[in-house]
Amino acid sequence: MPPSKKTHHRRYRKPQTQTAPHQTATASLHDGFLRFLPLGGCGEVTRSCYVYEYKDDIVIIDAGLQWPEEDMPGIDYLIPNVSWLIPKRKNIRGIIITHGHYDHIGAIPHLLDPLGHPPVYATALTRGMILKRQEDFPEVKKPKIEIINAGSKIKLGDLSAEFFHVNHNIPDSVGVFLKTPAGNVVHTGDWKFDHSPVNERPADIARLREIAKEGVMLLVSDSTDAEIEGHQISETEVQQTLEQTFQEAPGRIIAATFASLLTRIQQLIWLSEKYNRKVLIEGSSMKSNVAVAQELGYLKIKRGTFITQQELDRFPENRVTIVCTGAQGEDRAVLMRIANNEHRAISLKKNDSIIFSSSVIPGNEATVQRLKDILYKRAGKIYHQASMDIHAGGHAKREELRQMVEIVGPKYFIPIHGNYFMLRLHADLAVASGVKSEHAVIAEDGDIIMMNRHEVKRTQEKAPISLVMVDGLGVGDVREVVLRDRQHLAEDGIFVVIALVDSKTGKIRTSPDIISRGFIYLRESQQMLREVRIKVKEVVERTTTSGPRPINWTHLRDNLRESIGQFLYNKTERRPMVLPVVIEV
Amino acid sequence: MPPSKKTHHRRYRKPQTQTAPHQTATASLHDGFLRFLPLGGCGEVTRSCYVYEYKDDIVIIDAGLQWPEEDMPGIDYLIPNVSWLIPKRKNIRGIIITHGHYDHIGAIPHLLDPLGHPPVYATALTRGMILKRQEDFPEVKKPKIEIINAGSKIKLGDLSAEFFHVNHNIPDSVGVFLKTPAGNVVHTGDWKFDHSPVNERPADIARLREIAKEGVMLLVSDSTDAEIEGHQISETEVQQTLEQTFQEAPGRIIAATFASLLTRIQQLIWLSEKYNRKVLIEGSSMKSNVAVAQELGYLKIKRGTFITQQELDRFPENRVTIVCTGAQGEDRAVLMRIANNEHRAISLKKNDSIIFSSSVIPGNEATVQRLKDILYKRAGKIYHQASMDIHAGGHAKREELRQMVEIVGPKYFIPIHGNYFMLRLHADLAVASGVKSEHAVIAEDGDIIMMNRHEVKRTQEKAPISLVMVDGLGVGDVREVVLRDRQHLAEDGIFVVIALVDSKTGKIRTSPDIISRGFIYLRESQQMLREVRIKVKEVVERTTTSGPRPINWTHLRDNLRESIGQFLYNKTERRPMVLPVVIEV
Repeated sequence: MPPSKKTHHRRYRKPQTQTAPHQTATASLHDGFLRFLPLGGCGEVTRSCYVYEYKDDIVIIDAGLQWPEEDMPGIDYLIPNVSWLIPKRKNIRGIIITHGHYDHIGAIPHLLDPLGHPPVYATALTRGMILKRQEDFPEVKKPKIEIINAGSKIKLGDLSAEFFHVNHNIPDSVGVFLKTPAGNVVHTGDWKFDHSPVNERPADIARLREIAKEGVMLLVSDSTDAEIEGHQISETEVQQTLEQTFQEAPGRIIAATFASLLTRIQQLIWLSEKYNRKVLIEGSSMKSNVAVAQELGYLKIKRGTFITQQELDRFPENRVTIVCTGAQGEDRAVLMRIANNEHRAISLKKNDSIIFSSSVIPGNEATVQRLKDILYKRAGKIYHQASMDIHAGGHAKREELRQMVEIVGPKYFIPIHGNYFMLRLHADLAVASGVKSEHAVIAEDGDIIMMNRHEVKRTQEKAPISLVMVDGLGVGDVREVVLRDRQHLAEDGIFVVIALVDSKTGKIRTSPDIISRGFIYLRESQQMLREVRIKVKEVVERTTTSGPRPINWTHLRDNLRESIGQFLYNKTERRPMVLPVVIEV
Repeated sequence: MPPSKKTHHRRYRKPQTQTAPHQTATASLHDGFLRFLPLGGCGEVTRSCYVYEYKDDIVIIDAGLQWPEEDMPGIDYLIPNVSWLIPKRKNIRGIIITHGHYDHIGAIPHLLDPLGHPPVYATALTRGMILKRQEDFPEVKKPKIEIINAGSKIKLGDLSAEFFHVNHNIPDSVGVFLKTPAGNVVHTGDWKFDHSPVNERPADIARLREIAKEGVMLLVSDSTDAEIEGHQISETEVQQTLEQTFQEAPGRIIAATFASLLTRIQQLIWLSEKYNRKVLIEGSSMKSNVAVAQELGYLKIKRGTFITQQELDRFPENRVTIVCTGAQGEDRAVLMRIANNEHRAISLKKNDSIIFSSSVIPGNEATVQRLKDILYKRAGKIYHQASMDIHAGGHAKREELRQMVEIVGPKYFIPIHGNYFMLRLHADLAVASGVKSEHAVIAEDGDIIMMNRHEVKRTQEKAPISLVMVDGLGVGDVREVVLRDRQHLAEDGIFVVIALVDSKTGKIRTSPDIISRGFIYLRESQQMLREVRIKVKEVVERTTTSGPRPINWTHLRDNLRESIGQFLYNKTERRPMVLPVVIEV
């Protein structure tokens, strides 16, 4: 996923809580039970953050961010609301990170301080990605990250965790086998079964079968593709499709993908080497990810493959591949800048072949269409998903999801990492694959599920989950009311009326001033403005001369807001935000 | 497509023109040439409006509206910019409407006055839809609509038009065979070839073959699905899929689709009759479309099939079908209101089966996902596209597009009704199907293409195409600057600073007032507000006491805007719109 547009440090502010703080006294009621609590990811395919609690031991899996939705203008991203954890932070034994994508690591810099700097556990590449992001937050103490591997075992209070290898579209992804006194848990992280993956081995199904033999109380599994039939295509097939482009392209190849799709980037590099092309990596987030992965040995690149912007023109067009960000049509990403001729070093050429290699995130379709329009006007050939399937998603489809349930054979099942409808479809699938209907539980963010080998049940308690938004330097200071104002302003703009009122006579001094933005083209609306001024004068004098003394200024402002709002609506059928400024003189 | 949220009348304002008005003197240069000019639809899959001009005769095909894009907050819809036509409106021989969808008829009420009320030609159902919409514009003189049929021929000055039957997802759709002294034109309108359509006959391929024999200079064809391989599925197949739901559903069926998808609505009615269900039509736009179509005999409904809201509870759940609007997740449409429990007569029940029967328009995916979340929480079974293909699109896919080119065998080809990339793919397809490469011409909105039997060429002239936006009662009064302000306000809100300045001393009187919306949660930002007030005082006094006399108020306002803007950015990394109000006292 693309990084935030702003990369400076942010201060954490304790988020507003929706419900009363957790009463520690209730904990004793749950003795002998494992409690599962999603703080993100159960209701959305992002912002992953799952909490496991057994008595006085808490383990957190993932701490991701969420990119804002359409109706959140100006917001950079959202992070999990951890208010529930703060009073019991001394119990947190660790944060386990399953892989290096931002929707799993992005909230770490914001949560370390409030959670009291618990140890973080991650594989080497994931650790590299976390530390890279941490550089944007120099004021936050660096996390202590212990490197784990598939196969490692760690102790977390009375709990312990072992890691198993899964496939995803970033290397070094793991699932977690969590052993607790209440029972064993398999938590998949983001996963798929790729039997012929690129640059890594297939998911460790053999180990999953052994784990199953130990008895699994609970399976917690990724629901992203729970409505898609079939099996995810293998990265090897993707590579074959990509290779066609390399065989055909007459000039440069420009391949756009996510900065974090390291597997795809590796494929593009290998194909470039095979077809004797140099590679330029463009986009700061992609560059830094590649640097981290290369340094740690997760990307295999021959000496001399990479070139710099300055070297670009030294090579013939058919000897160059540009791998860049922007496949979702993001405004400031590299591909859009190239398309719009705003990139300082790269402009489109008629012979260029362009590859979009990532699936379109729901909501981005219109933007991608606009980008394609621009590209078709200016480039040679475009390869995109509708005409050839260049993208293997990172998530298991229904066939693999069924397989996972059957291999692990859990008593209970909780679907995660999905919109509600995906969770529901996944739960139904688990039931069809052998889980008892009453044992497939849908937990939404904030729900607390309690279980042991004998029973699984919901608690009455709900953790606070009001949204915590990051906007510029502020964390949690944009409240729903601010967002509602932004939406209102966007719809019909603002209309400020400034009236100087003589506090003795109650009469208006000079003609009222009017400032308006986003409402109407004022220069062509002089007649209406004249009428508004007359109306303002009328309202002021009616209110101040007939009403009680001293003048009730609040009442006057309310009257103005309402009368002018209604007047503008009658004239235009729009409802700008009316701000009356009444100044006593 | 869904109707506008606001339905009152609107005044037309002459839109801003980007280029100089058309010089009639140049017309003589083009003697003997036919000119083709898209005013909408060539660059977007909507807002259809195509102009054909031969000497002093102008024929317009379609006059549609466009729903706003994501970055047009508050806008109801856009209409074609007809400034180019206004000076030559006496030459307009008629407006031909190919079918009754809003993106083909929606601009008619706005364009009749400026275009001098030319005659409108439409089939009976299309005419019914136009007159229905016209009821929302009581102040505009009703159009003179002459009813045409597939097979009718009309005279339009030196031009003439004949109509041929095509399939689409609304009945009574036609294509136009336009005969001009410069050559013959086939203009398809929106179309597909359905060999087993529902409630109508297959497209008239036989007539197209005869037309081809007369020689076709130009084919102008619908590009909506130009990137999709294969042949559009038939409405008969759709019906079979729908029928499964009727066989399985244990309780009510709630089927959401577009208000104008009359073919789908007919299918749902027939299936309900077959399975002994009563039908409730919900949603005012759908109700009025159904009323028009029923009155004109385009919907076949048995007496006693339709029931009212009041009768709903008299029938067992498995004897009821509700057909309604809202399949795109539109906020105020029926399905969303039912899902949110905001509908006064219908609430979801656990046994309900819900059908989404329309493809998701690009840009609506995230909204549809949210709607599905709500429905999955509260209804029984959901049938949607990912799990079964219930929707046949209304547009020809690549195989049909090829067939059309091959049947008509035109000399020239112009793709319409598409984003640029679709036009390009369609043009390439036409070339692969026999059109010479230099004869497949991409025209974008405003481009004027000139042709006769010997040559086709672009003119230097470009018609003005600046966007004409309808917002509430205003047409064309929201300019790009207003829209930019709305976008800016949405991003970071507004910050109004009110300073009373003594015009003699240049000093500030009382502490400056601050009003802010959509920027930051003010109640928690008191410290920052204090600092802003000090800063304002500082800027005012620095400017007024050191600067020239009399005080330069404009300069003071500029200083305040810049200094306070910078100050807020440093504190928050946000850029609210800063409005300084300086009042001399």
